[in-house]
Amino acid sequence: MKFTFVTLFPNLIEPYFYDSILKRAVEDNFISYEFYNPRNYTENKHKKTDKQMVGGGAGMLMTPQPLFDCLDEIKIKNPDAYIIFPLAAAKPFNQKDAKRLAKKKNIVIVSGRYEGIDERVIEKYANEVFSIGEYILTGGELPSLVMADAISRNVQGVLGNADSLVMESYENNLLEAPSFTKPENFQKLSIVKEFLKGNHSKIADLKNNLAICKTKYYRPGLITNKKIK
Amino acid sequence: MKFTFVTLFPNLIEPYFYDSILKRAVEDNFISYEFYNPRNYTENKHKKTDKQMVGGGAGMLMTPQPLFDCLDEIKIKNPDAYIIFPLAAAKPFNQKDAKRLAKKKNIVIVSGRYEGIDERVIEKYANEVFSIGEYILTGGELPSLVMADAISRNVQGVLGNADSLVMESYENNLLEAPSFTKPENFQKLSIVKEFLKGNHSKIADLKNNLAICKTKYYRPGLITNKKIK
Repeated sequence: MKFTFVTLFPNLIEPYFYDSILKRAVEDNFISYEFYNPRNYTENKHKKTDKQMVGGGAGMLMTPQPLFDCLDEIKIKNPDAYIIFPLAAAKPFNQKDAKRLAKKKNIVIVSGRYEGIDERVIEKYANEVFSIGEYILTGGELPSLVMADAISRNVQGVLGNADSLVMESYENNLLEAPSFTKPENFQKLSIVKEFLKGNHSKIADLKNNLAICKTKYYRPGLITNKKIK
Repeated sequence: MKFTFVTLFPNLIEPYFYDSILKRAVEDNFISYEFYNPRNYTENKHKKTDKQMVGGGAGMLMTPQPLFDCLDEIKIKNPDAYIIFPLAAAKPFNQKDAKRLAKKKNIVIVSGRYEGIDERVIEKYANEVFSIGEYILTGGELPSLVMADAISRNVQGVLGNADSLVMESYENNLLEAPSFTKPENFQKLSIVKEFLKGNHSKIADLKNNLAICKTKYYRPGLITNKKIK
């Protein structure tokens, strides 16, 4: 799996691959990444990539020409390119998308900046558009990393222990139950006693009930389509 | 506003402050940041901060002692500390939270790693818990940055032009309308013609209608509580 990041600020993205799980995933050749900077494609003599928004509205927008030329080159060099745009105005990115996209060979993620991107770029090049949540960020670089991280951990080999993919929040439309380590008591706070008794079917039942409680409390929407009362 | 990041991997967070808007916000003293590493607080002789989960389940969990000691020190040094945990199992973080939290003096963000954090740490120290979206990441560092970024841009002074905070997605429960720059035609793709004609009330109406269409298509849930048909 190769990630191709299109961004005016590669320095906001690249260091995340220098440590921890994604660093190891790159070293072990499970994933790779590269950068394209639209600034290298602009025909503007001052190397600008943004222009005033048409029809009023504050701020600047990324203008079509540099992105068209950049994305055309990427598509020629990468016949498997699957192009996604993190945008505020798009469908929500979720765990099912992360798993599905982990099967692609090359994912191109285009980071917007300023007030966004001229809609024609999205119309022409987007295979999919995603929003990572209902909030506004200073640019598309963090959402690009969030999606790359969520996708990467579903790429075969990236997480050593495949088990750790199973019992997690959202994997089965439930949030995860609370979990604990030893010691059993720490500064007067104790863990759920049943967890220590070793009756695994009882523990599994209890965890499932705790997961349902937590989901009902924090994310009732996740549970409404399920046959859980 | 000071962000205090509690993380085993400060290198995954710090470089994001070296460029673009947050770099400038730090240089201009609108925001500042610092790091605490739980590894420096562990009493384990091998400097470990994780332990096996109790009651079965794959993987390791962050154990209470290092985080208790670390967070106790932070609370003593920062009487205004407001502690938030990015977690998969939590309420959704949204734009209203970003604006509300931008008024705090010191936000402490605790990044989980491995399979998560012993629930007692969250019980004892969390002022709030947030999930940034319905997907799983390799650690809490990206969600910490996402929240810090969304909050920072609502801190007075960070965005030069206060206007750019008004007409954005989620600011009024609507996604943003498509936007365009010149040229009017680019590779046979043209912009919405009305935007060029200069009738500002007509443009505003049109943008509002386009915003409603986009929201109904991508995020019907945002619109159901409003009086829009």
